[in-house]
Parts: sequence; C-alpha cells; structure tokens
Amino acid sequence: MEETRVIEIDSNKMFGGCNKRYRHYSPTLGCNMIFSVFFPPLDRRPLGDKCPVLYWLSGFASTSNGFIERSGAQRCAAVKGIALVAPDTSPRGLNVELIEGQTDMNPWHVGLGAGWYLNAANDKWKNWRMYDYVVKELPTLLSKYFEELDTSRASIFGHCMGGHGALTIYLKNLDKYKSVSAFAPIVNPINCSNGQEAFSNYLGTNRSDWEEYDATCLIKKFKFKKFPFPILIDQGEDDPFLSEMLPHKFKEACKSANVPLILRMQPGYNYSYYLIASFMDDHIFHHALALE
Amino acid sequence: MEETRVIEIDSNKMFGGCNKRYRHYSPTLGCNMIFSVFFPPLDRRPLGDKCPVLYWLSGFASTSNGFIERSGAQRCAAVKGIALVAPDTSPRGLNVELIEGQTDMNPWHVGLGAGWYLNAANDKWKNWRMYDYVVKELPTLLSKYFEELDTSRASIFGHCMGGHGALTIYLKNLDKYKSVSAFAPIVNPINCSNGQEAFSNYLGTNRSDWEEYDATCLIKKFKFKKFPFPILIDQGEDDPFLSEMLPHKFKEACKSANVPLILRMQPGYNYSYYLIASFMDDHIFHHALALE
Repeated sequence: MEETRVIEIDSNKMFGGCNKRYRHYSPTLGCNMIFSVFFPPLDRRPLGDKCPVLYWLSGFASTSNGFIERSGAQRCAAVKGIALVAPDTSPRGLNVELIEGQTDMNPWHVGLGAGWYLNAANDKWKNWRMYDYVVKELPTLLSKYFEELDTSRASIFGHCMGGHGALTIYLKNLDKYKSVSAFAPIVNPINCSNGQEAFSNYLGTNRSDWEEYDATCLIKKFKFKKFPFPILIDQGEDDPFLSEMLPHKFKEACKSANVPLILRMQPGYNYSYYLIASFMDDHIFHHALALE
Repeated sequence: MEETRVIEIDSNKMFGGCNKRYRHYSPTLGCNMIFSVFFPPLDRRPLGDKCPVLYWLSGFASTSNGFIERSGAQRCAAVKGIALVAPDTSPRGLNVELIEGQTDMNPWHVGLGAGWYLNAANDKWKNWRMYDYVVKELPTLLSKYFEELDTSRASIFGHCMGGHGALTIYLKNLDKYKSVSAFAPIVNPINCSNGQEAFSNYLGTNRSDWEEYDATCLIKKFKFKKFPFPILIDQGEDDPFLSEMLPHKFKEACKSANVPLILRMQPGYNYSYYLIASFMDDHIFHHALALE
C-alpha cells in the first residue's frame, strides 16, 4: 500500500527551532522518500510571518541526514528565520539493477544516492527524476502541508553533486529561486569522468542532452539580461577531486556571459563537511540577503 | 608489535584550524587508542603562544568522532584560540567477554564504549582505567608530542557518561582543571540504574567505592573553601532519560556545599547532539573565561 500522506519520522529541537524528518510517497519517483526540514524559532517570526525556504541538495554518499547532523547550518538559519529543506539524493527501494556491491550505505556515481538532480531518459532509470522532484513535487508538497513555509521565496544550495544540482536547477528556473550557492560543486560534468559515467547511463549518448544539465554549458547558453544576485562558490584547494570539479571552467564561462561569480578557492581545505561547516555562515547570510 | 609512537590518522582543516586524529599504544589501558585534537588557527596565536586545552569526554555510543563531526565546537574554539582534545570512551580490541551482541558500533552501559572514566577494581575489567588515562597519561602524552599545547591550562567538559566523567575528574583534581561543564550529565550514578549496573561490574559491591566516582557524593564530601568558577550544566527537559540523570540531586548537593552551579533546564530539548550543538558556544565561552 502506497503512503500518500506526509508522515513525521522524528523531531529534534535545535537552536530554538526544530529539525523534523518526513516520509512520503513520491508519484514523481515512484517510491517513498524522506526529506528533512529545519523550522526556525517562532520568536524570529513575531508576526506569524511565513519563512522563506532554502533548499539543500546533498552530494553522493549523503542522505537527508548528513546535512542536518554535520553542516551546522541551523545556527544561522535560526537567527535569520530561514527554513532549511533537504531532500534525499536519489530514489530508493526500487527494483533496479545496480552496480555490484552498491547499497544505500555504499553509493557510487550512478544509481543509489546518485540522482544528479536530473530527469533520466534511459528506460532503466525511469524513476530517476530528481529534477522534477526537487523543482516541482517538493515545493508543491511543502506548500500544501506546511502553512508556515513561503515557497514563493526560495533559494537553493548544495555540495558536490548537489552543488551541480543547485546550479543547474537555479539556472533553469530563475523565476523560482532568488539565489544559489555551492560547496565544491561539480560545475562541468560533461567534462569530468564521474559526470560522463552518470550522464551516459541516465541520458544516453547525445551530448546536447547532457548540456541541458551542465552548469558551465547553461551559463554559456543563456544570455542573462539582468542577473539578480551573485553566485557564491567555496572550493577547497586541497580537494582530492579538484581535477573533476573544474571550477576554472565555470569561472571562464561566467566571465564570458557577464554573470557575477564569487569563487573562493580555500587553501588547505579538502572536500568534506569540514569545508561546508567552516563556510556555512557566509552561505546562509548570502541567501538571507537575497531572500529578504 | 605494540605501537608506542603517536601516529596521525587523518587531518581536516576546519574554521581556519585543523582537526587531527591520532592513534597510540596506551600502557595504562593495554591497547591502542584513538584521540582527536582540534588545533585552533595560528593567526589566533600571533606570538606563537601555546593554546590552552579543553578536554571533551563523550557519552556511550560515541567514539572520538561524534564530537568532531557534530558538536560544532570548533567554530568558537577557533575564535578563542582553544585546543579541543577528545579521547575515545573505553579501551577497545581487548579479549574481554562482553554482553551478547555488543560491538564497537553497538555499545551498552558496561564494556565497549562505556569506560565511565573510572579505574575499575574488578579483575575482569582490569584494562578499564579511563580515569588514569584521561587524568594522567593523555596530558603527559600531549605535553610530550605537541609543543603548541599548554596542558597546564586545561578545562574539561562532556556529555552524559562523559559529563559524569568531566564532573568527577574535575572535582577530584581542582589543581589540574580551571573549569568544568556538561551536557545532560549522569550526576548521581549510584542512584540510577545504568550507573548501578556499571559500578557493580567495575567496582564491586562496596558502595563507598562507588561514591568516589559519583559527582553528587563528591560535592557533598568535599568542603570547598574557595571555588574558582561556577559549574555549567545544560539539561534537556524532554530528555527521555531524565529520570536517570537526576540533575536536582546534584543541584541540592551544590546548594548544601555552597558550590556555584548554573543548571539550565532547556525546554523542548532532548538528549542528543542537537542539544550539544545548540548550547556549545556558551560552554566554550564559559571555559574561555576560566582559561584566560
């Protein structure tokens, strides 16, 4: 029996607000999904104001939990009165043939935990429609079930594959999101090995289809007349995957297209929640400015 | 072959400082142990000053990792120039008969992960000498291997079983620690079921031996002539284990003994890293005042 309601799984008070996790059946993905919401404290909303929503998209190997437990984002979000919403990273529990040894706890660049926030074209991955889930289903669901959330004021950020997701979703939906930022994002997946592996599985062999989900291509393609807010990216210089990340490609594309980009190369930092936690406050303040 | 050196296991830059984990052979415990150190940024020590040390003692079910990953303590410690040192919670890898099903990942109140920061008397638990490890071996080792740490300026805090450890170690060593604080500490273990289970296993049946490791008894026993700094405790009111924690017993004992205690009952908070993270800044500032 499919669960159509939104069920609260757990609730933990934090920084005067509350982390809650929910399970629901997603028609878009054809499976049950879990997402988390941090509700900022009510005393930050003395007039009963609705909160703006900041979506977090996680990277590989993370579920909706890593962000809640390790980012420290709630501290500033509580002060700024912003709700944080973190979906899971892929459909789960489906009968899809996976790479040998792959489990929920042992993800790879394709399959479980690796939704890439796109709509797959390949029939094998027909449930992998994380783009539609994040852009369409989730905001509609939040509006319906959570009166205190104002989904018309939304921004988006993420890490690694989730940074890629945030950037591409933002660039394709400038009307829906006020601002975007990312930690160690994959900005040019069509030119890095894990992106190529994922896109060939999900999207087939036509490279023009790939470009629809590549932030560097999207920046090049669109000529922005008015770009409302700079893009903020933090990238560790000691990231062992730096050669896959290609931040300079994105920087060049932004420069050509006249898109304001704040790219901060962080010396000594690697690719981890330690990077994320260290610069989280700056990202929350960045989005708070755009959302105010 | 026993490892006598201190080996760096990993290193992650965070908030301008660095989290490092180390492995070493502990003669006190007769096994290899892991501890972590957060070194605050050098630019907080422009004269090459040594850093004071704040020890964190974790609760059950935690290793030296939970604190690093989830407490958010590094942010304020970086600002205040304080090093954080977090040992593991018990000896590991020894040939001791454990409760059925107990593993490193599945701890209980006795055995793996449950060192209770005491010196066991029972021969079966002869390696369980976490009190000596924390009070004697670890500071000596830190002084020897880490020139930048000033172990003569030290404070101590912890969570649950580690809050018990911090309080008892502090009360028995007022010359060694400048201040103490705790999150949801077990303050009166001789009067709660998990404390009784642990102490009867580790210490035998003589209750006067138990009292040597009970913070409420230690407060009652000693008549402090000069108490340098208040004790700070945060306790969630919605902690499902509140009946085991007995904070009011400790409060009464402190009042009788004229020991300054700041006991904050936090409404809506439970027993978790969400409580810890929410009030971590206050604890770091508390210790920073004492250490300055």
